[in-house]
Amino acid sequence: MIVRVKGRRRHYRTVSFSARTNEVVLIEQRKLPHTFELTRTKNFKQTARAITNMTVRGAGAIGATAAYGFAQGARAFTGKTEAAFARYLQRVYETLAAARPTAVDLVNALNEVRAAMAAGKTISQKQKLALRAAENFADDDIAHCEAIGKHGAKLIKNGTRVLTHCNAGWLAFVDIGSATAPMYAAQAQGKNFHVYCDETRPRSQGAALTAWELAQQGVPHQVIADNAAGHLMARGEIDLVITGSDRTLGRTGEVANKIGTYTKAVLAARHNIPFYVAIPLSTLDWNLKDGKDIPIEEREEAEVLCAWGTDTRGHFRQIQIANPTSPARNPAFDVTPPELITGIITPKGIYKPHKMWANREVLESTK
Amino acid sequence: MIVRVKGRRRHYRTVSFSARTNEVVLIEQRKLPHTFELTRTKNFKQTARAITNMTVRGAGAIGATAAYGFAQGARAFTGKTEAAFARYLQRVYETLAAARPTAVDLVNALNEVRAAMAAGKTISQKQKLALRAAENFADDDIAHCEAIGKHGAKLIKNGTRVLTHCNAGWLAFVDIGSATAPMYAAQAQGKNFHVYCDETRPRSQGAALTAWELAQQGVPHQVIADNAAGHLMARGEIDLVITGSDRTLGRTGEVANKIGTYTKAVLAARHNIPFYVAIPLSTLDWNLKDGKDIPIEEREEAEVLCAWGTDTRGHFRQIQIANPTSPARNPAFDVTPPELITGIITPKGIYKPHKMWANREVLESTK
Repeated sequence: MIVRVKGRRRHYRTVSFSARTNEVVLIEQRKLPHTFELTRTKNFKQTARAITNMTVRGAGAIGATAAYGFAQGARAFTGKTEAAFARYLQRVYETLAAARPTAVDLVNALNEVRAAMAAGKTISQKQKLALRAAENFADDDIAHCEAIGKHGAKLIKNGTRVLTHCNAGWLAFVDIGSATAPMYAAQAQGKNFHVYCDETRPRSQGAALTAWELAQQGVPHQVIADNAAGHLMARGEIDLVITGSDRTLGRTGEVANKIGTYTKAVLAARHNIPFYVAIPLSTLDWNLKDGKDIPIEEREEAEVLCAWGTDTRGHFRQIQIANPTSPARNPAFDVTPPELITGIITPKGIYKPHKMWANREVLESTK
Repeated sequence: MIVRVKGRRRHYRTVSFSARTNEVVLIEQRKLPHTFELTRTKNFKQTARAITNMTVRGAGAIGATAAYGFAQGARAFTGKTEAAFARYLQRVYETLAAARPTAVDLVNALNEVRAAMAAGKTISQKQKLALRAAENFADDDIAHCEAIGKHGAKLIKNGTRVLTHCNAGWLAFVDIGSATAPMYAAQAQGKNFHVYCDETRPRSQGAALTAWELAQQGVPHQVIADNAAGHLMARGEIDLVITGSDRTLGRTGEVANKIGTYTKAVLAARHNIPFYVAIPLSTLDWNLKDGKDIPIEEREEAEVLCAWGTDTRGHFRQIQIANPTSPARNPAFDVTPPELITGIITPKGIYKPHKMWANREVLESTK
């Protein structure tokens, strides 16, 4: 999407790859919205670290980064034997797979690249296939987001007030985004609408990233505290909720997403406000049978006790908000049950959450 | 309650009055939890400003501050005629009444002091009566909180995991607090329990003040993001919710409280978790017939876009969290309907919200 850098509008992808230098090129998301900066990882371990430390975050962007990281790792292999290559690749795979426990996209992406490599006869062929598969993963991610936008844009009319949670925007993908795709498509269709961005503590991705994105693209919006959406719904000031998903269970229609998503779904149901989840197909998990089995990452206490931003002089700082002698709990995701979800916006169309399993063939067909 | 200052445990009230210097003495709450400091207001205008700028906040503490501020104003009058005194008092009244629009305690407190002054025959008598009425208001506030604790402590058993929102603790009152009163009483009874403190953005009073209070009193607790309670409820990790209230409608049982309270009530109802609101009688509003008529203060955007705390060197700082080119909306309160409230814990006992009107005589009898 568009970024305004020093008065000029330029197009960027969130994740890309430099084949010449064998580096993954990432937008440094921890410095946004204050500084726009690209960062390059030199090897698969650095790439895994960039996923863990949230230089890059969001389902699709993590997937593409892992895919590129796997290709990057494969391409860096200088040994001779197939057996050594296989052992080494297993280490690359495990390092990247362990970078974030909840995101299913990450493992899907790695599996996709690994499967593509199987067609290669030599190490060199496999290395080439790895890069091609990673590039395909990234391009597919964009095509999926475009299709989500096409289907989801119908939900937004002139005057619609949309609530979104966290950042399922283009920064969370290679480009365009999932929850934001209907917004950007509706904007392209000339519709006027308003977006409320949940701040999304503890990491404030809504206030920092979604608000930044919407401001860059010129979409009217306001940041609200996570506490405010219930009140706005009660006063009839929200018409539609669209969030993203880190993992959606194809069997049950349960949606794992950023902590607080479930709360918004409960509120929306009470107020008969349609609640949609926009997902690329790669985040669909067809295996798990129960949302309770989705691993919920508990992140460090400091995220809850502190906040990050720029001081009055523009210096980036961490501050302690909470009482310094108090501990915290920090579950990073929650699970929203299908009965609270009006529809799942996929690249293949909008599905009722409990109808995905019956449509598995259609939903899996582009993968 | 107890504050540990330089290793010593001392008892403090949140609000008190120095008759000798005619100053209101307040705990400077904007510097908590980082620095414990007392501040003194020299005249009623400074006292009103301390309410507006949230040096002091919370229903009971605002009420007592306003009561003392009114007495302070009355005592500062040096004119001769009754008519001039009346005109002047009206200005004092209006200045203090306008300091915060949503808190009903503030106006109740002013009315109580004004009514008590009517018994005085001379200006000097009225000045003395004003101070006595303000002292009574503060003492009543403490007695009410003690009674709330006595009734509410029954709800807390060994092992109970309590959620509370914002700060309805002793810092929000003259002492003891409303939502915290059952906790402190249960602690005094030797019960072991755990408290989750909602951070309560945008001003983070839960993370900063409630967590500080609980830490000072030695009550086991953890701070959570406002987004996390829904998840913890869904996983069966919260047994009881107790919040405070800034205004409770005696006719309807509707509760106006810090933004986000309504959301927690909706979540608690979904999970069949008892949701209680602890109130001193002074926050009861017997006049309003509809929660929609409660004025909801919209505060400045910076509260949502920024955060406050100490940097790694201990300097108190404001940082910009959100995208700097994005606007915000900041409703400070919301209204929870009676059907979501299990009970209202009052100094007179625990009432179903819709049964308050029928028990109006009992509930008003100590006022």
